[in-house]
Amino acid sequence: MQIAMIDDKVVPADELEPAYLDRGVYFGDGVYEVVRSYDGKIFALEEHLQRFANSLAAIEISGVDIDRIRSRVLRAFDAAAIANAKIYFHITRGSAPRSHTWETDLKPNFFLTVTESPDDTEEKTKGIAVSTHPDWRWKRCDIKSLNLLPNVLARADAARKGCEEAILVDEASLITEGAGSAFFAIFGQTLQTAPLTANILPSITRKFAIEAGKNIGLDIIEKSFTPQQAGRADELFIAVTTKDIVPVVKFDGKPIGDGKPGKYTKLLIREFRSFT
Amino acid sequence: MQIAMIDDKVVPADELEPAYLDRGVYFGDGVYEVVRSYDGKIFALEEHLQRFANSLAAIEISGVDIDRIRSRVLRAFDAAAIANAKIYFHITRGSAPRSHTWETDLKPNFFLTVTESPDDTEEKTKGIAVSTHPDWRWKRCDIKSLNLLPNVLARADAARKGCEEAILVDEASLITEGAGSAFFAIFGQTLQTAPLTANILPSITRKFAIEAGKNIGLDIIEKSFTPQQAGRADELFIAVTTKDIVPVVKFDGKPIGDGKPGKYTKLLIREFRSFT
Repeated sequence: MQIAMIDDKVVPADELEPAYLDRGVYFGDGVYEVVRSYDGKIFALEEHLQRFANSLAAIEISGVDIDRIRSRVLRAFDAAAIANAKIYFHITRGSAPRSHTWETDLKPNFFLTVTESPDDTEEKTKGIAVSTHPDWRWKRCDIKSLNLLPNVLARADAARKGCEEAILVDEASLITEGAGSAFFAIFGQTLQTAPLTANILPSITRKFAIEAGKNIGLDIIEKSFTPQQAGRADELFIAVTTKDIVPVVKFDGKPIGDGKPGKYTKLLIREFRSFT
Repeated sequence: MQIAMIDDKVVPADELEPAYLDRGVYFGDGVYEVVRSYDGKIFALEEHLQRFANSLAAIEISGVDIDRIRSRVLRAFDAAAIANAKIYFHITRGSAPRSHTWETDLKPNFFLTVTESPDDTEEKTKGIAVSTHPDWRWKRCDIKSLNLLPNVLARADAARKGCEEAILVDEASLITEGAGSAFFAIFGQTLQTAPLTANILPSITRKFAIEAGKNIGLDIIEKSFTPQQAGRADELFIAVTTKDIVPVVKFDGKPIGDGKPGKYTKLLIREFRSFT
């Protein structure tokens, strides 16, 4: 008889809830998005849905109706009635007995949560510390997939060092991005971040941060830089959906500038707020 | 109110089953093993448990009692009463609202299935076809983690080409291993496979295949080789727990040797059988 065990409990395999057969847990075979609302208004939902569609296509999950996803997101957001909400959702390829290949009639699983967006006032006002970690991720980080163990391990390493984010460094000693954020440096009046390649998530917040940079008169360079260069930057910040722009005031233990959020970063935070 | 959605159904977040909050699905934050039995006897269980312990330690999941895992495996195997069984088990870091970092008191989730081992007579007798795919996996493939999306995509590509396995090729144009197997070539009287590095799973079946190679008098070289070299090999095979040694008779569309399982591969299959 085919059986399963959940912790110490033996159960017949055919009585398992679909969640236990989710290819999301067997393989990380799914993609996700996080959107947030500001004062009752979801920011950049269409951009996130477009990226979600791209991720689904990249891993060959077909038959997902993005209009239906949009209406689920809106319905959940309404039901939660949280003004400043964080909305997480993923789709996995479906639930089936474990096999790398899949049947074409497999029905994708959708899952979503709406939670209160944590208060980021202190992080935004005081800035955060970050530390570097080797970029152990796979070679298709342009896909927002559920394969996030390297990000988890890098973030854990950062936390042990008293840091809020891990900045990932590739084998060529170049910074790619944060474990859960885009990473920016300001040198003089130039805003610099790594270019979009297969190793970088096409971050929506990154796009708007660049837009904000242009609006406040900064020159933009999309070119990778090293941890050494980052340590000598005038200002550093991360960009992430849940907190938009967060100043980085310490990099691998070394203060950046005067150890306080920089003037351009503060302007960028204000400019970004005007988008939301 | 914090809410969740499962497909079209809205549910209060605090009523979610733990399986929906499993870090296995959010992050692939877990490790797994597959063991099999031959005629009622589990093969190499201790080696698999040791590797499982190594994987757990590598991703910092602590507090798992390997003796308890062993007794669960044996209990499930007994309950299933399948002589030639495939036993899959994983541990994830636990269930909690999504956050890269985790609370230290999180309780790991254990999950196991026992199924009939599929009949591999035809594959073993006729051999299989394989095709190459870029190795998109992360940089710690020595850890047997649930981050398997690159393996899934590579295997899907192979299936589209009518192949049973994808052979992964790194950026230096060297073969690492199969998407779900170790990969071996025989040149003359030499058995060759890639050396164990952070990019290679320390496969138990690989270890026994090398042992079998020594026993039948082959020279062993642990050194990477290219797809071009593989195409010119006298014999090729994959090694995987569920099927031990399977001859490869076609590589990227090109027949290997006379297009039939090679003589040494057949000897290796027989020798391997003596271990089980």
